[in-house]
Amino acid sequence: MAIKFSERVSKVNASEIRELLKLTARPEIISFAGGLPAPELFPVEEMKKVSVKVLEEMGQEALQYSPTEGYNPLRKQIASRMKKVNVETSMDNILVTSGSQQGLDFSGKIFLNPGDVVICESPSYLGAINAFKAYECEFLEISTDNDGMIIEELEEKLSKIDNAKMIYVIPDFQNPTGRTWSLQRRKGLLEVAKKYDLPIVEDNPYGELRFEGEMLPSIKSMDEDGRVIFLGTFSKTFCPGLRIGWVCAEHDILEKYILVKQGADLQSNSMSQRELSVFLDVYDLDEHIEKIKDIYRVRRNLMMQYIKSEFPKEAVATYPNGGLFTWVELPEYINARELMERALKENVAFVPGGSFFPNGGNENTMRINYSNMPDDKIIEGIKRLGKVIKEFL
Amino acid sequence: MAIKFSERVSKVNASEIRELLKLTARPEIISFAGGLPAPELFPVEEMKKVSVKVLEEMGQEALQYSPTEGYNPLRKQIASRMKKVNVETSMDNILVTSGSQQGLDFSGKIFLNPGDVVICESPSYLGAINAFKAYECEFLEISTDNDGMIIEELEEKLSKIDNAKMIYVIPDFQNPTGRTWSLQRRKGLLEVAKKYDLPIVEDNPYGELRFEGEMLPSIKSMDEDGRVIFLGTFSKTFCPGLRIGWVCAEHDILEKYILVKQGADLQSNSMSQRELSVFLDVYDLDEHIEKIKDIYRVRRNLMMQYIKSEFPKEAVATYPNGGLFTWVELPEYINARELMERALKENVAFVPGGSFFPNGGNENTMRINYSNMPDDKIIEGIKRLGKVIKEFL
Repeated sequence: MAIKFSERVSKVNASEIRELLKLTARPEIISFAGGLPAPELFPVEEMKKVSVKVLEEMGQEALQYSPTEGYNPLRKQIASRMKKVNVETSMDNILVTSGSQQGLDFSGKIFLNPGDVVICESPSYLGAINAFKAYECEFLEISTDNDGMIIEELEEKLSKIDNAKMIYVIPDFQNPTGRTWSLQRRKGLLEVAKKYDLPIVEDNPYGELRFEGEMLPSIKSMDEDGRVIFLGTFSKTFCPGLRIGWVCAEHDILEKYILVKQGADLQSNSMSQRELSVFLDVYDLDEHIEKIKDIYRVRRNLMMQYIKSEFPKEAVATYPNGGLFTWVELPEYINARELMERALKENVAFVPGGSFFPNGGNENTMRINYSNMPDDKIIEGIKRLGKVIKEFL
Repeated sequence: MAIKFSERVSKVNASEIRELLKLTARPEIISFAGGLPAPELFPVEEMKKVSVKVLEEMGQEALQYSPTEGYNPLRKQIASRMKKVNVETSMDNILVTSGSQQGLDFSGKIFLNPGDVVICESPSYLGAINAFKAYECEFLEISTDNDGMIIEELEEKLSKIDNAKMIYVIPDFQNPTGRTWSLQRRKGLLEVAKKYDLPIVEDNPYGELRFEGEMLPSIKSMDEDGRVIFLGTFSKTFCPGLRIGWVCAEHDILEKYILVKQGADLQSNSMSQRELSVFLDVYDLDEHIEKIKDIYRVRRNLMMQYIKSEFPKEAVATYPNGGLFTWVELPEYINARELMERALKENVAFVPGGSFFPNGGNENTMRINYSNMPDDKIIEGIKRLGKVIKEFL
């Protein structure tokens, strides 16, 4: 049989990270590759109590079909938690999604026609790039520095094209760089988006994992005309296995997300939504997040300390104030995919950074995760990685 | 802000069923509208034990990210259950999806370019129609009778077009008609699909709910060249709230589904997959299905008996040997949407059949569900509905 697939499918590639995760599942591997939370912090005991409570108090409902928009008590709790990013909203502006990855897919589905241009940070989140690619878009990458996207470059590039359709950004502890946008850049982005009348998809999976310093207001919190779609998730603050994220957007836009969710999977898991809702009622998620932050802060410190002592000075790493990743730039003649092959022989893994650039290039970069490995493995892994990098100099 | 959505979003409509379900959530409503399983049959007590077991034995893993393809023990169990539809397969041909609705969405995403034609039964499942519409396809409806799709009409219509891309069918206890295809029609479809080299998406949510008679082999079981993609689900045989379905397809095709799932939601719920897998290990799902069938059979009997005695002879109902629905054709001058408005005043609900015809028309039809209401409400509801129909004669 000669299978004829759609055009769009030919444009999607297997996520290098997902494929890597398979390779790195071997227990002897010290993996800095995934964006995995530390599983030893998952509230397993609490979840046992919560599961039983949900099944005892609303078992039939938890196993039945439920509304596309989400479980209303959870939507209310999410709306209330949006205050943490300075957003006053109500459950009517919240759609529960199957992880925030689903919010990314829906954003592509709702906004992008073939040939449309997505504006994104250079580099940007690989999972978003792949989700959007399925809608046959092009990417216009805007350079970034330690304060976020360079707004002058954004404006200049936007003035030269007429098919930009959507801006996608991760302003807090960005994936892959770990960088956070300054307030000025956030305001600047909103101004430019207004001038060119573009929607902004603000992806914020890591914002609540700040180790030090003051939180900056989300772009959504400064949104005056409903152009910002905020994507949130419990994957990093609670656990990813339940696949619960959300979209917060103005009514007319959210309606489209809801419509698209009907066709995509009808609704998110009825039971997991109720479990999370009961957890939020019975336990203190913020206290739990403090615990996560305490552990990740130590790991970040350790990793940055050992990168400093073990990596050659030619390898320049970002210093993240939160989130899960640091980002290393190597001399241009080093190819991090080749480095990765060599590192795997030493049983150490990371993600070569080239995958985070939708238009290619920048193969001399690495994304390194510090949330998933215990202290001793961070030290040992960075030592081995340092040696491998020195071989390539 | 002037929001510019994608072309495709303008082609998707809110599912009438989902909107109806909201209306019919009032407790005084006797609802024959949804395709909801009977919640009193959900294994709530068993799920309590299973949830605790999963969290005790593999808690961290159940709350962590897991592979896109699905939880391997569950994939094996699904592969083994495929024997029920005469298919010998292995876990490598199984992708776990978030309900079989996700399998429908992915089928559209993988096969359909704008303008491509989907061949479907007339009528067909509304949720599939909406999922495919998002990929800007057209629909070519093929007439059906009590034995399924009319193969001669299929062949004649296919000979006149060159942009058919995919055939979508529900051969067992079809949604919305409750009809089951004969063996001859199944073979006929495969022959025609081979002649025109088209993939077939075989959607089978109800096949295991047969009340009497012999199961017929699935189309997938007679598939010699890997053109059939089989969609299954635990929503009707176990519970829908966990959102677990699957795709069974040949390697090259399944690879595309996996790729698309990476971008769509990374993976299905880690915990629910493990819960279902443990349930399948510890309990006897087939025994559970027998219980469901015993109850639904009684409800089907009761509904058909009262339709016969309470509906006027001008209303012609199908007699389903399984599944959840019967389908009623009224005289052409009766509009079932108007009938529905009137019925709602009597606190009875069903789904007007027009929505199941992607190209419109056939407004004189009704889909009536018998799985979700207890016996006394079936009797009372059908009596009220009979009176309302008689008013419209």
